[in-house]
Amino acid sequence: MAHLQPLAEELTREWPEILEVDRRLKAELASQVPLMQEVIDHLSGRGGKKLRPRLVYLCGNFAGADHRPDPAAIRDVATAVELIHLASLVHDDIIDRSRTRRGKPTANALWGNHVSVLAGDYLFAKAFNLLTRHNQYGVVEIASATIAIMCEGEIEQAEQAYDCDLTFDQYFRRAERKTARLLAASCRVGAAVSRAPAAVQDALEVYGRQMGYAYQIVDDLLDLTADRKVLGKPVGADLRQGIVTLPVVFLLQDEGWRAKVAPLIAARAVTAPVIAQVRKGLKESGAIRRSFEVARQCVAQAQEALADLPAVPERDVLSGLTEYVLTRSN
Amino acid sequence: MAHLQPLAEELTREWPEILEVDRRLKAELASQVPLMQEVIDHLSGRGGKKLRPRLVYLCGNFAGADHRPDPAAIRDVATAVELIHLASLVHDDIIDRSRTRRGKPTANALWGNHVSVLAGDYLFAKAFNLLTRHNQYGVVEIASATIAIMCEGEIEQAEQAYDCDLTFDQYFRRAERKTARLLAASCRVGAAVSRAPAAVQDALEVYGRQMGYAYQIVDDLLDLTADRKVLGKPVGADLRQGIVTLPVVFLLQDEGWRAKVAPLIAARAVTAPVIAQVRKGLKESGAIRRSFEVARQCVAQAQEALADLPAVPERDVLSGLTEYVLTRSN
Repeated sequence: MAHLQPLAEELTREWPEILEVDRRLKAELASQVPLMQEVIDHLSGRGGKKLRPRLVYLCGNFAGADHRPDPAAIRDVATAVELIHLASLVHDDIIDRSRTRRGKPTANALWGNHVSVLAGDYLFAKAFNLLTRHNQYGVVEIASATIAIMCEGEIEQAEQAYDCDLTFDQYFRRAERKTARLLAASCRVGAAVSRAPAAVQDALEVYGRQMGYAYQIVDDLLDLTADRKVLGKPVGADLRQGIVTLPVVFLLQDEGWRAKVAPLIAARAVTAPVIAQVRKGLKESGAIRRSFEVARQCVAQAQEALADLPAVPERDVLSGLTEYVLTRSN
Repeated sequence: MAHLQPLAEELTREWPEILEVDRRLKAELASQVPLMQEVIDHLSGRGGKKLRPRLVYLCGNFAGADHRPDPAAIRDVATAVELIHLASLVHDDIIDRSRTRRGKPTANALWGNHVSVLAGDYLFAKAFNLLTRHNQYGVVEIASATIAIMCEGEIEQAEQAYDCDLTFDQYFRRAERKTARLLAASCRVGAAVSRAPAAVQDALEVYGRQMGYAYQIVDDLLDLTADRKVLGKPVGADLRQGIVTLPVVFLLQDEGWRAKVAPLIAARAVTAPVIAQVRKGLKESGAIRRSFEVARQCVAQAQEALADLPAVPERDVLSGLTEYVLTRSN
């Protein structure tokens, strides 16, 4: 991947590898059932940054010049990881009753829950179909374990809805399950396909996990602070559904603000005025600053995991991506 | 499997193998997330005939005494097939908005769609986790292709809702995708784990597919003719959702009855009086008799597929199961 530019600009640039992932994805998903094809076209046409396939490719370059990964294997594994991500988004939109994602209508908004459930299952099945062709790298096991854990994270989130006593540790355990595990797995499978040594695979997995935590925290911050138009979805959507995120955990640690907002959250009455008050509290209590500080610490740990890896150009890109995670606006 | 009794009684008897599948299933699904564990306990405690795992075991005995399947492999594959079946039921209940299954409340009735979506995904993921441990038999590929096709069948069914021009061939293609493919796959993976010759695997797959068609047709008949209490769900549930099944395809081929019921179906107004009229029509037009005759033909083809297989005791059980499929009452 000699064409790499260091730093975060890489994410907005169209790599030839990512264009190939796009083609592969469309070819694999092609269905003879017209309605399925229509849903698939909608889902695969929404764009997105393809962060996870990029991680797969980048992490496939740490095993030395003699261990370049098989191009078909790394392409298929990168495609499968994106399929798993897409499937989880489709099912999350059912769970959250979301009407828009990335500024476009969700599949459940357009076709209803029944079609969305099946479209998500189809994406999962197609992901495994791709992975099994390259199972000598152990990728099916990593993927299946990751999906099971993601489901547990989402169920845990439902269980913890409107819980004003959610702890910092509980939040992190959920972020691990919901988000960090898939980023960690993306890094690990990339390394695995290149047959990198176990220590290299471990370090890249740590990088992915810490990036995942930071990504989730910034997501939580954006949900409460960003502009509706930039975000492509309503402000405070998480809290409206009772999802208590890190900024809110910190806000509730402030006694004065806790007295004001905890009863409203616990009463499951999170209306627009409540969101407005929470936003005020987040700023005044320092909860935003504290959350961002935690994200920054995670990124520092991600950087640390990179330190002992071979100094290939891809390491600089991974390092630059940490900046992107902290500064992204949607 | 020297303890086998010929004929359909086998299905109600608790084989030691099936008890082991039950144990394996519970052990694999154990979750540290309390709500997930609660849902899993509900789903795995509903009983059921375990038809698919039984097919896996039975079909693992056609490769000769020197090719007895590895006990752990056949157990895990049988468990995975049951997990895939359970996952598809959970998601189908969301799609059909079913409130009861096997006379008990569905997961979506108890916990809502969001929890059910995730529970189904979790079951799928756990199935792949089991299968990948025995992927030398090609089972992950069979399973992932089967799930993708099952999703297409369900989507196709949504697409064809209230379609009074559904043809016999369209009905069969959907039955293949929705039901027959998983029964065929159950037979095939059992044979594959025992490393049976390709011709044996093919014949058992044909048996499973034809059994699947018969199973689906009888299911469709029961939906419209059985007693609500025996069935454990409301009579005519399929047609109320616009699912046009084989008996209705035949009913609509009768010009007199078509004039009476087609406009009501096409108007999406399938109320209790409409169901009552359809039931009357099914009897008077001979649609029930014709549907049953088709099921009988499928069973005959299933029997034919068995004819050239080695005359092991399991062949008699498979043969006896065809009787069960035709005579079952729920």
